[in-house]
Amino acid sequence: MTEAYVVGAGQSDFGTFPDESYRSLFATAFEAARDSVPKGMDTDDIDEAVVGTLGVGGRQLGLPGPAVTEHVGLEGVPCTRVENACAASGYAVRQGVQAIRSGMADVVLASGVEVMTDVSSEAVRYWLGVSGETEWERLSGTTFAGVYAQMASAHMAEYGTTKEHLSQVAVKNHANGAKNPHAQLRFECSLEDAMNAPTVADPLNLYHCCPTTDGAACVLLVSEDVVDEFTDTRIRVAGVGAASDAVGLFQRDTYTGVPASQRAASDAYDMAGVGPADLDFAEVHDCFAIAELMAYEDLGFCEPGEAGEFVASGATRPDGEIPVNTSGGLKSKGHPIGATGAGQVTEAFKQLSGEAGDRQLDGPRYGLTHNVGGSGGAAVVHVFEREEPRSSGGSSGRRPRDGEDGGESA
Amino acid sequence: MTEAYVVGAGQSDFGTFPDESYRSLFATAFEAARDSVPKGMDTDDIDEAVVGTLGVGGRQLGLPGPAVTEHVGLEGVPCTRVENACAASGYAVRQGVQAIRSGMADVVLASGVEVMTDVSSEAVRYWLGVSGETEWERLSGTTFAGVYAQMASAHMAEYGTTKEHLSQVAVKNHANGAKNPHAQLRFECSLEDAMNAPTVADPLNLYHCCPTTDGAACVLLVSEDVVDEFTDTRIRVAGVGAASDAVGLFQRDTYTGVPASQRAASDAYDMAGVGPADLDFAEVHDCFAIAELMAYEDLGFCEPGEAGEFVASGATRPDGEIPVNTSGGLKSKGHPIGATGAGQVTEAFKQLSGEAGDRQLDGPRYGLTHNVGGSGGAAVVHVFEREEPRSSGGSSGRRPRDGEDGGESA
Repeated sequence: MTEAYVVGAGQSDFGTFPDESYRSLFATAFEAARDSVPKGMDTDDIDEAVVGTLGVGGRQLGLPGPAVTEHVGLEGVPCTRVENACAASGYAVRQGVQAIRSGMADVVLASGVEVMTDVSSEAVRYWLGVSGETEWERLSGTTFAGVYAQMASAHMAEYGTTKEHLSQVAVKNHANGAKNPHAQLRFECSLEDAMNAPTVADPLNLYHCCPTTDGAACVLLVSEDVVDEFTDTRIRVAGVGAASDAVGLFQRDTYTGVPASQRAASDAYDMAGVGPADLDFAEVHDCFAIAELMAYEDLGFCEPGEAGEFVASGATRPDGEIPVNTSGGLKSKGHPIGATGAGQVTEAFKQLSGEAGDRQLDGPRYGLTHNVGGSGGAAVVHVFEREEPRSSGGSSGRRPRDGEDGGESA
Repeated sequence: MTEAYVVGAGQSDFGTFPDESYRSLFATAFEAARDSVPKGMDTDDIDEAVVGTLGVGGRQLGLPGPAVTEHVGLEGVPCTRVENACAASGYAVRQGVQAIRSGMADVVLASGVEVMTDVSSEAVRYWLGVSGETEWERLSGTTFAGVYAQMASAHMAEYGTTKEHLSQVAVKNHANGAKNPHAQLRFECSLEDAMNAPTVADPLNLYHCCPTTDGAACVLLVSEDVVDEFTDTRIRVAGVGAASDAVGLFQRDTYTGVPASQRAASDAYDMAGVGPADLDFAEVHDCFAIAELMAYEDLGFCEPGEAGEFVASGATRPDGEIPVNTSGGLKSKGHPIGATGAGQVTEAFKQLSGEAGDRQLDGPRYGLTHNVGGSGGAAVVHVFEREEPRSSGGSSGRRPRDGEDGGESA
């Protein structure tokens, strides 16, 4: 079984781009990814493509995959569109890993794209709504903000989580996003700003909700057989986990966590042979501030119920024990539905390559990405490992982490 | 690298079902597939699911995968929705094969579902239209029938293909579908009927076009490690090929063939180590009669330009050299967009298992399925092989075909 490696990743700016199309945004991300491959890559090297997109607004409902890949000169290669709502391109990356490991492809483009701002906010709400449970949630008037507000209320009631805790997620992520040249909301916010914003769905206010975003992101995965042709910095997909769940929140046993995330994380850690304590950073799915807090617990960064205190302690800031969302997260970087998962992997690639600019962490070796569809109907988790330089091939599992030569190659 | 095997497959009836939902149709197909596994299978045995659907009418735009798998008790397992227009579940099967070969799953449900008849025909035309090229085809008024009519006109002009040839496809497929209890249009038609039907898009008339259909189909794939737990009749996915192309017909170099089909077939044959002459039957994508004729040529059943004479010769009838669409094809069995590819594999499984009832061929060993998205923006081809019974494990490639013990195990 060959392992899969990330050798390149890039994204378009995330934001509102009335002069761009989903194809032009995709092309920008594709070129950024291709240009990021240390030893270079030709478009002709790519032998499979996976495209994650929801299709907000209904553009190109069918065949959006070939519609974007033909635009970047990838006509001919197998191209599959995958979708799991907001986790579309997290699953695209997972499918890319399966394609590599299956032996059916050596170089795979795993990607995502979404354009959301060219329709009215009512239309966006509709398109997102039809990614949630229909009969008992959407048709009774519940929005995604409303569903996550129910989770926030439950977390507050059960664990004493506060509005200040929610707001601290926003403060941290905006501080990070302000350093990300591709972020949509590139400004810091104060705790006061975040506490006093207008209510969206009580207890969530404007700073507890991610924006509506256009954007694309592309990740280049290769097999172990060819990885050395593209890079000397081997960034391995060490662990992959995914799980589904009932689409409707009301159908689940808990409102204070996302079981699909828990299961996906457990599987990813098992496959990678590492645990949360080994991680040097994580990009988690903070569509709403409560989602980031639940992620801390679901991914094992802290115990259930302790996420509020955990964010308050600074543990997830860039200088904390487990930096979370150095990219700015969905909150500040933006949340172009289908592009978000691949965008998270792009940040992980940059951090592990030492190419994260002003956001660069100090020589991280393990990073995690966590992408959720709907309110938890699907989740996918990846663990990435920057392998130590070595003289000969043959991938192994977990390496000793402390007290060894940590030579940087990026 | 483990091989992938089909151990079960089933479908709902295809047709117009105002009293069914996409979930109930899916459940019917799932139960049929599970019940078809010779040694039985529990829902808990399944560790991954792939769902192909276009979402005609816009129902459950996002997360349709988990929405149907939760309904059959598959909550929890990784579930991915894939889509490539009318090739959605052909690609779902391909993804299932990759999941197995990747070592990340031992038992995969690969499936498809569509409900099309609960919206107006104008709405169906819109939803299908947005699976084609938008700017230069749909917005200028071209429908899918119109695009295939252009192909038919070109084929007639270049090769002398006639309306009678097109009609013979309909006659054959209706004769086959009349024997299929799950088919939508279970009646025979005469050549006179097929010649004199009302025009849809000249030169294509009503009998040259498939119907609008509700339905679901499910395929159960397993790894070599576990195949013997489920069956003694090993039906191996011997070859897989897929290719994309420009979404718009006008962007391609030829109107008389589908380059993506040619490339997908070539790759599938290479992987399987067989050629078209080795096949005992094929299920091909006959959304329009011209599509079946082009498939004969693209898949290598006859030379380019000879498809008209080939169908006229009876070569593709059940008693011909290469029976095509014993199920009735899209024309008579029906074409529930996202379910069609998995439905084709269901027929292949039944034929190779000796469970095709009145349509059963005589001990077939190799079967092919061919599924096209749009007018050829995507295509996927599978070659299935019923392996000879043997005493010990260890899969091999192509086996000698003639002059050896051909003991039936089904």
